[in-house]
Amino acid sequence: MNKRRVENFSDGIFAVAITILIFNIPVPHGAPGTLFDSLTSQWPSYAAYVASFMTIGVMWVNHHAMFERMTAIDRPLLMLNLLLVMLVVFIPYPTELLGKYIPGGGADARTAATFSALVSVGLALMFSSMWTYIVTHPALLVPGFDREAAWKSLPRFSIGFLFYVLCVPLAQISPIAVVVVLAAVAVYYVVERLPEPAQPHD
Amino acid sequence: MNKRRVENFSDGIFAVAITILIFNIPVPHGAPGTLFDSLTSQWPSYAAYVASFMTIGVMWVNHHAMFERMTAIDRPLLMLNLLLVMLVVFIPYPTELLGKYIPGGGADARTAATFSALVSVGLALMFSSMWTYIVTHPALLVPGFDREAAWKSLPRFSIGFLFYVLCVPLAQISPIAVVVVLAAVAVYYVVERLPEPAQPHD
Amino acid sequence: MNKRRVENFSDGIFAVAITILIFNIPVPHGAPGTLFDSLTSQWPSYAAYVASFMTIGVMWVNHHAMFERMTAIDRPLLMLNLLLVMLVVFIPYPTELLGKYIPGGGADARTAATFSALVSVGLALMFSSMWTYIVTHPALLVPGFDREAAWKSLPRFSIGFLFYVLCVPLAQISPIAVVVVLAAVAVYYVVERLPEPAQPHD
Amino acid sequence: MNKRRVENFSDGIFAVAITILIFNIPVPHGAPGTLFDSLTSQWPSYAAYVASFMTIGVMWVNHHAMFERMTAIDRPLLMLNLLLVMLVVFIPYPTELLGKYIPGGGADARTAATFSALVSVGLALMFSSMWTYIVTHPALLVPGFDREAAWKSLPRFSIGFLFYVLCVPLAQISPIAVVVVLAAVAVYYVVERLPEPAQPHD
Repeated sequence: MNKRRVENFSDGIFAVAITILIFNIPVPHGAPGTLFDSLTSQWPSYAAYVASFMTIGVMWVNHHAMFERMTAIDRPLLMLNLLLVMLVVFIPYPTELLGKYIPGGGADARTAATFSALVSVGLALMFSSMWTYIVTHPALLVPGFDREAAWKSLPRFSIGFLFYVLCVPLAQISPIAVVVVLAAVAVYYVVERLPEPAQPHD
Repeated sequence: MNKRRVENFSDGIFAVAITILIFNIPVPHGAPGTLFDSLTSQWPSYAAYVASFMTIGVMWVNHHAMFERMTAIDRPLLMLNLLLVMLVVFIPYPTELLGKYIPGGGADARTAATFSALVSVGLALMFSSMWTYIVTHPALLVPGFDREAAWKSLPRFSIGFLFYVLCVPLAQISPIAVVVVLAAVAVYYVVERLPEPAQPHD
Repeated sequence: MNKRRVENFSDGIFAVAITILIFNIPVPHGAPGTLFDSLTSQWPSYAAYVASFMTIGVMWVNHHAMFERMTAIDRPLLMLNLLLVMLVVFIPYPTELLGKYIPGGGADARTAATFSALVSVGLALMFSSMWTYIVTHPALLVPGFDREAAWKSLPRFSIGFLFYVLCVPLAQISPIAVVVVLAAVAVYYVVERLPEPAQPHD
Repeated sequence: MNKRRVENFSDGIFAVAITILIFNIPVPHGAPGTLFDSLTSQWPSYAAYVASFMTIGVMWVNHHAMFERMTAIDRPLLMLNLLLVMLVVFIPYPTELLGKYIPGGGADARTAATFSALVSVGLALMFSSMWTYIVTHPALLVPGFDREAAWKSLPRFSIGFLFYVLCVPLAQISPIAVVVVLAAVAVYYVVERLPEPAQPHD
């Protein structure tokens, strides 16, 4: 299977998903003289835009890093990749739920936090499944890739999964805490890196 | 003609078509305390999202597999490809009709099922036409490709076409049965594969 | 300048422009039992979808053919290309005007036909300008390309321009005739081809 | 890191961002016989479309020129690039604010001009940061690239930044003057060029 086309298709999906986030920021149509207040009161829209953009962007970086360590793609990997990007495209939806329902508190805040935690569990599960599949199929790996280092990286790579699962019960106690944990894990993945292939690869 | 650009253009169309499916899942705007009920009652939107995403995704996999077996593209193939992607982009429309009108039953359910069956007939027709065109034009095939195996694959590759045609009269008797057949054929195409080229072709 | 990235960027724009055409086909929300009538009365939306899709698709084919004959891109060509794709993205707008205002006749039909003719003049002008620029800059052409054939192709390539200009006064007499001429020229460009480079080029 | 995928992802984002500008031009739905007036009174929509399209297009040209001078991408550059494209995708928003609020004058015009100036400052800052990062990391530069010329280019490349910063106080005095300065700087970047690599590079 042609790795380049899988990357192009995935890159296209990431690119469209990240760009259509702009549709969630409406141009204010208030009374004359109220533009300044309208723009400042829209800060949650801007925050959700930045949060979703950086989340999808960092996932793209990690997707990219995973594919850098492969030389070939097989059919099961194509299907895992489809499920992964299906969840990536879905990211703006729970982000919007959080922005809309966390401030009000109550049952809706707990529902929004639970829903977001479950989507994050699904995403972490897909990333871990893909990485496990790749590491257990040496024929797909770039030559000279250190499989031992890859195995050791799996727990660190999968640590987000554990935190996301813990967010599900946490959502019943403190929805705000879920937002903090989700943000912290996202920042962690900005700096966390997969092991380098032994040979530089383009 | 440059095969890479045809692939890029097609991949871009598949990527946009699959990503804009998210626009069909609206963020709930109900009374306070109703978010859980709103989200659970939205399950047909989620189901339609997953169904359309996997359908377009699997078509992309098969499109990709077809192009893997070609070395060159000519003008008639470009036009066949345009007609094919025109129908791919259209997929979310019949999916939405099914989700909206099948539950209510009656004449509208029969209309929605007939319409969806016809779109599927069109898609199968375009895939079979492209594959027939490629197999009958050896200059377009990768060297060493087993044309005999390709010919033998045509009936299996075209079996969806037969089922889709049968769905047109079936839609008048049982619209639900059409949904089941369409889903079954989609799952069949996840595992059905084109014959491999004799030589591996990255 | 890197020809591949200009192609990727242009292909992306063509792919998005052609895919978002689907937004112009609304899912019917009529009274129960009216779906069949709603779908059949929506035929102008389907016709506009097919017309815009094939128009943008054929322009992509010609854009692709033009770039096949180049080996390098310079800054003026980048700017010409930007202006060209700016008009390509605009195509669905006059198409929608035609579908909406031609049936009613009167002043609005004449306005819609004039507007569409002017957009087509702009598009033909950009295609002819790019082709003229390329043919007059041999350093940009693929080696072995027959410049004499290219010069001879210019009038045939530019024939659409003449017809589009004639559509501007024609719109005042018969808006329907403008639709017929625009469709006929679009079909002409399906079969019209640029001269082949002397050496096959991937 | 794979430079090609970063380019593809960025090109995809630029392509989607530039194409969805068309959504800001609504098809008129006025009384019969008013189409001509509706179309002519919509000129600010057309002007905003052209301005945003050319702005994003020229930024793509400069992004492209910057990447042409690199051979490799590292993680900090990926993050800078993400922040840059996040602002590029945002461009239509301030453009729409300018078109909507400058004509009315008053406090809203000052707010819209200030907001647009701040977004432009952010964009110039990201472009200058990326260029500074590249020039100070010779391992990322194409071989034979004249670093001295690159350093000398930094002030010229960053001149937009100074003008954009000056637009922030200017917005309180004359919002119209801000529009003029923003347009003038955009035109300047059409002709301003980065130094060429010493060796031609594809």
